[in-house]
Amino acid sequence: MPSLSPAIAEIRLAVRTALGSLPERAKVIVALSGGADSLALAAATAFEARSRGIEVVTVTIDHGLQEGSADAAASSAEKAEALGNRAIVERVDVAADANGPEAAARDARYAALRAVAARERAAAVLLGHTLDDQAETVLLGLSRGSGATSLQGMAPRREDEDGTIWMRPMLAVRRATTEAFCAASDLEPWNDPHNRDHRFTRVRVRENVLPVLETELGPGIAEALARTAEQLREDAEAFEEMIHETIEDIVEHAEAGISVSVAALAANPAALRNRIIRLVVDSEFGVSLTRSQTLEVARLVTDWSGQGPIDLPGCSAARRGVRIVFTAK
Amino acid sequence: MPSLSPAIAEIRLAVRTALGSLPERAKVIVALSGGADSLALAAATAFEARSRGIEVVTVTIDHGLQEGSADAAASSAEKAEALGNRAIVERVDVAADANGPEAAARDARYAALRAVAARERAAAVLLGHTLDDQAETVLLGLSRGSGATSLQGMAPRREDEDGTIWMRPMLAVRRATTEAFCAASDLEPWNDPHNRDHRFTRVRVRENVLPVLETELGPGIAEALARTAEQLREDAEAFEEMIHETIEDIVEHAEAGISVSVAALAANPAALRNRIIRLVVDSEFGVSLTRSQTLEVARLVTDWSGQGPIDLPGCSAARRGVRIVFTAK
Repeated sequence: MPSLSPAIAEIRLAVRTALGSLPERAKVIVALSGGADSLALAAATAFEARSRGIEVVTVTIDHGLQEGSADAAASSAEKAEALGNRAIVERVDVAADANGPEAAARDARYAALRAVAARERAAAVLLGHTLDDQAETVLLGLSRGSGATSLQGMAPRREDEDGTIWMRPMLAVRRATTEAFCAASDLEPWNDPHNRDHRFTRVRVRENVLPVLETELGPGIAEALARTAEQLREDAEAFEEMIHETIEDIVEHAEAGISVSVAALAANPAALRNRIIRLVVDSEFGVSLTRSQTLEVARLVTDWSGQGPIDLPGCSAARRGVRIVFTAK
Repeated sequence: MPSLSPAIAEIRLAVRTALGSLPERAKVIVALSGGADSLALAAATAFEARSRGIEVVTVTIDHGLQEGSADAAASSAEKAEALGNRAIVERVDVAADANGPEAAARDARYAALRAVAARERAAAVLLGHTLDDQAETVLLGLSRGSGATSLQGMAPRREDEDGTIWMRPMLAVRRATTEAFCAASDLEPWNDPHNRDHRFTRVRVRENVLPVLETELGPGIAEALARTAEQLREDAEAFEEMIHETIEDIVEHAEAGISVSVAALAANPAALRNRIIRLVVDSEFGVSLTRSQTLEVARLVTDWSGQGPIDLPGCSAARRGVRIVFTAK
């Protein structure tokens, strides 16, 4: 008996671990672009699902943005069917978007996946992001400069408010391993021309930034970035949990806004104080404060010398006695 | 009256803010390489110190690693004296070091600065690191991949165990601003040839990595990296504070090692649990656990299924009843 390719063994194990958290006989969606990553995911999921009686449905999104996109989607779906999966192609309309074409395509894609997951009553949607994608996401986050929030990358498992569960079983798997999986399985991946298009920041990060980092900082940088993301995600979750436990006790809702206890803000370390300020303004006014705005509000607590109200986007903040009051404009 | 150069105003303000935390008539050391950053710091400190009766002593370290290093150090000292400071040159011997010549030179430099600070009974040592240095430090930390710990950069203020206070007043100042300060003040900085030597990783980060990030991710990346460092430092300090409050209650010392309560580790979020494990092993055995070693120990708590002892560098970890016991090898 020929021995199993290490690439196949590694990806099957990753998928098996992820499926292990789902009930037997559940139905899962695999998001299938047709690239090496999602094709390997579809193949490994088909294999691992059998022994647990799990039903697999692949969903290929035709964004209609490139000539021949319908054919490419149909071809990917055929490959998924040949692997023993049920395969669906969803055509989406990508609306113009202020955040650019990448964001618009992504929004349309996730909306379609969410709709299929609901329609199919799927337990989870499996996404083919790899360690390399995670490293790229961390680098993209660096330019935002908002600390752990922008560097924590993609979650291995996340549940949306509508109940959709998104899973990324391959976040510890290198992209090259998914290519080796396909080669060892005689699967021919589709090479999306967009993946080489340097108009996209992510493509430039992949092709220009990561290689320079590897050269100058040494090999292993992608793994280091992914490890960093994992730890910063843990940190962010810990802070969220702490804030969740305390927020209702320290916040009061008023007619034109919301207020927070000065004593509670003062008693917390800066990391929690600043997060509470951002969270309160975001949840009440839908505004994301910058670092310097957040610190200016915090100084109403930490460096109080009778400052006047602070003008913020969508609201203002002022100290009134023992409370910081945020008022809608 | 000619108006003050914005560069001079910005750096003087930064120094004034830092000196504001020190007692009147204190003595401060300025670490003076003679480059634009430390020369601007020495000039601004000389100016700001006067009105507060603070005494300034510049210390220039002659590492003896380059031809003419004694002359360069003497020349920097002369410039500092011309600014009204007392100036000292310290010759150090840079020993061979397993961590490379950069680390050895840095160790020798900081030891000499610490010795002078003690001898002079200085209240603080001022270091000329800029926002650009901070951004480079964050990028250097990326390759270590240990999350907030490796990305928090340099502290604006830190007190050593021996009581030396290190301050970096210019962490929010761009390097170009220090160059503009010198140009506007007719100060001629010394250009250390080592700052262009591509054998040093930091030089390659400065000259090869940061420009690529600017090009591909957009301008403002240095500021974003510095902002990230500031927030991750806050996060790390919050976790340290929380652990400091609880550690004595959950740890027990035994003859051949140390143990931690399983219940306490289980009750904490992963961010704290993993930090506690690393701290306990580091403080007891002087060993810094990797991420995967830390997670393996954590699984004795989170995924307990009767695992055997875990072999770690310098010690082993095992679950014994309600405690995780770390035993010296």
